[in-house]
Amino acid sequence: MSEVQFKGKKAQEASYQMTTLTTEDKNEALALVAEQIVADKDVILEENKKDIQDGRQKGLTEAVLDRIFLDKARIEGMAEGMRQVIDLKDPIGETLETIEKENGLYIERKRVPIGVVGMIYEARPNVTIDAAALTLKTGNAVILRGSSSAKYSNIALMKSVHKALEKSSVPVGAVQLIEDTSRETAKELFRLNEYLDVLIPRGGKNLIDTVVRESTVPVIETGAGNCHIFIDESAKKSMTEEIVLNAKLQRPSVCNAIETLLIHPAWFEKNGVNLLNLLKENQVEIYGDEAVCEAFPEAKAATEEDWATEYLGLTISVKLVDHVTAAVAHINQYGTRHSEAIITEDDKNAQIFQNGVDAAAVYHNASTRFTDGFEFGYGAEIGISTQKLHARGPMGLPALTSSKFFINGNGQIRK
Amino acid sequence: MSEVQFKGKKAQEASYQMTTLTTEDKNEALALVAEQIVADKDVILEENKKDIQDGRQKGLTEAVLDRIFLDKARIEGMAEGMRQVIDLKDPIGETLETIEKENGLYIERKRVPIGVVGMIYEARPNVTIDAAALTLKTGNAVILRGSSSAKYSNIALMKSVHKALEKSSVPVGAVQLIEDTSRETAKELFRLNEYLDVLIPRGGKNLIDTVVRESTVPVIETGAGNCHIFIDESAKKSMTEEIVLNAKLQRPSVCNAIETLLIHPAWFEKNGVNLLNLLKENQVEIYGDEAVCEAFPEAKAATEEDWATEYLGLTISVKLVDHVTAAVAHINQYGTRHSEAIITEDDKNAQIFQNGVDAAAVYHNASTRFTDGFEFGYGAEIGISTQKLHARGPMGLPALTSSKFFINGNGQIRK
Repeated sequence: MSEVQFKGKKAQEASYQMTTLTTEDKNEALALVAEQIVADKDVILEENKKDIQDGRQKGLTEAVLDRIFLDKARIEGMAEGMRQVIDLKDPIGETLETIEKENGLYIERKRVPIGVVGMIYEARPNVTIDAAALTLKTGNAVILRGSSSAKYSNIALMKSVHKALEKSSVPVGAVQLIEDTSRETAKELFRLNEYLDVLIPRGGKNLIDTVVRESTVPVIETGAGNCHIFIDESAKKSMTEEIVLNAKLQRPSVCNAIETLLIHPAWFEKNGVNLLNLLKENQVEIYGDEAVCEAFPEAKAATEEDWATEYLGLTISVKLVDHVTAAVAHINQYGTRHSEAIITEDDKNAQIFQNGVDAAAVYHNASTRFTDGFEFGYGAEIGISTQKLHARGPMGLPALTSSKFFINGNGQIRK
Repeated sequence: MSEVQFKGKKAQEASYQMTTLTTEDKNEALALVAEQIVADKDVILEENKKDIQDGRQKGLTEAVLDRIFLDKARIEGMAEGMRQVIDLKDPIGETLETIEKENGLYIERKRVPIGVVGMIYEARPNVTIDAAALTLKTGNAVILRGSSSAKYSNIALMKSVHKALEKSSVPVGAVQLIEDTSRETAKELFRLNEYLDVLIPRGGKNLIDTVVRESTVPVIETGAGNCHIFIDESAKKSMTEEIVLNAKLQRPSVCNAIETLLIHPAWFEKNGVNLLNLLKENQVEIYGDEAVCEAFPEAKAATEEDWATEYLGLTISVKLVDHVTAAVAHINQYGTRHSEAIITEDDKNAQIFQNGVDAAAVYHNASTRFTDGFEFGYGAEIGISTQKLHARGPMGLPALTSSKFFINGNGQIRK
């Protein structure tokens, strides 16, 4: 039996045992894990050094190395994040629907754990602890498969998790790390339908595309964000400038930052060059359509590819569109169904935009940067879903639950 | 462009147009379709005859031919089913959650259509009309891919649907039938991620397994039901007999009929032979474990395969299990997560069973035959989900919806 098969089986067994856990049991385990990783910090930092050394040898960029890097403060941050999950409301057991039938049958639909959650992710070792916390709180077992670049750190963290779980009512099998980070183990996870109820990839577009294409286990697609702002004719100048600069610059490397501006020609004529100059002053490189390049010669000519690109950096593409419906059509063609905004004083156009755009979050007169589990008040997030089944947008604890019909009778049969 | 690509694109375009439809628009279209298929019944019956003739030539069984067969009454039944959907509450637009942020941002999560739903199904032409009704009511476009054995009937029905939609506000592209029923078109649908938001297979285990294995489009798994009843030590004799006979015999060919009895040895010793005789008298063939075969010599020896088989007919397997936890373990090993029941007077055991069994519907002292959208009061169902994401159990109209965050501000940016 392979490592993946073996750990899958263990995780499923654990998930069955976990159906009897109380909220207190789970919170106690979370507190113990938080305590343990802080207590074990020297060992964890020692192992993290090996990842950093390996990474340097392999020539990873400083940005990637920084994502892998741990210090005392970062470990305490992970523990603190885990403790915050203790305070979140436990969704398990919540009654979602009750149906009383004339024959006396009492049907109750309640929230239950999904079962076994698989996570495939890149670089950051803190995902190991975040994912363990959220799945544990929702009564799920989890199989974690991190990247080779954080291998030593992840194994060390997992040792601490297991030490803590041994002292708790949560079975140790509830949190499993696949230590072999070869491509083969990822492929095995894609097809582990026997033991896995869902697979959640967290990372770049390539990772997500591969998982969607190759997995027979149900997948929740997260992350990619080719986000737009449409500046309508009636948009206020100063509000528009503030929102655009915030959505592009507050953190350019994240999924809810914008990549394309769509601008109404009448607004552009009055305020366009000023806005593009503001972006330019902030080191943003601009790719524009013909009209934009004509009015703003520093812009380079945008190609078809630009409209489909998530730059994740200091680059933006700009296009003039005649009407809100043209903006909607452009976004539905090129967008990735993440976060989209309109700036307008025309409520009818706002409504056309928000109804027509096919995305998880549709904004009117606000920055797209708010699409985030913490910002929405969920207290934590396992990712941002860009698909339409099960969960859409920021996924809090309820996204890690399923439901089950509990039906109680006294001998009812179907006529 | 292939038929599947072309119709996929048309369906997506239609789905975008459908975001502006009101409940009245959709209900009007449903009424027009119902009227049209009754008006066109002679043509539809003529085309249905061709399917029946072809089916006879191909040597289809009478049971399958009966599923394909249409007469005036059945067509009127389809129209009536469509009219019933008019009366169901429209879930679209419902507010599921509101979040008001301190900075004045107002976040509303509302139900929206999924977009484009794909359905792959077998034989019955009434699924064409049922699926069209439910997807239309929920504002979704649908791509239907029926089987070759109902090809002429489905094409005729689709002509009537399109004639009716032309008179309505619903775009004709909202309901599309793939006329080429070769395996190639099914395969194309499996990979039509660009246009399809979900694929729902309805049919036998082979069809469902193929779709789950080969589809990169998100799938909702429906249907297969290897269902059990566990008869606990304290189960009342007459209640048990009534429930078991109902769950096995009321309609043996459906997914929520039972296939295996698990019996506590103490109960079996007192009442087992009597129960098995009742089943025998009703032409049920019995496969038992060693103890069962010893006590009831008419039983044949069950093999490992029996525990995993959904007989869908007058056959049952019977096994003695010492304790409720052993029953739970057996069901979690061999069940298909559909409907499972315990008969007991011991509430603690009922709780252990209902919490521990991993299934969409868990019954205490009632027949498994109630797992059904109509029985649960949903008024209609698109299928019974046996997976744990998005929808679990009978799927009413809400299962055909997604949600979307509408965020309204007055210039908010993220600090």
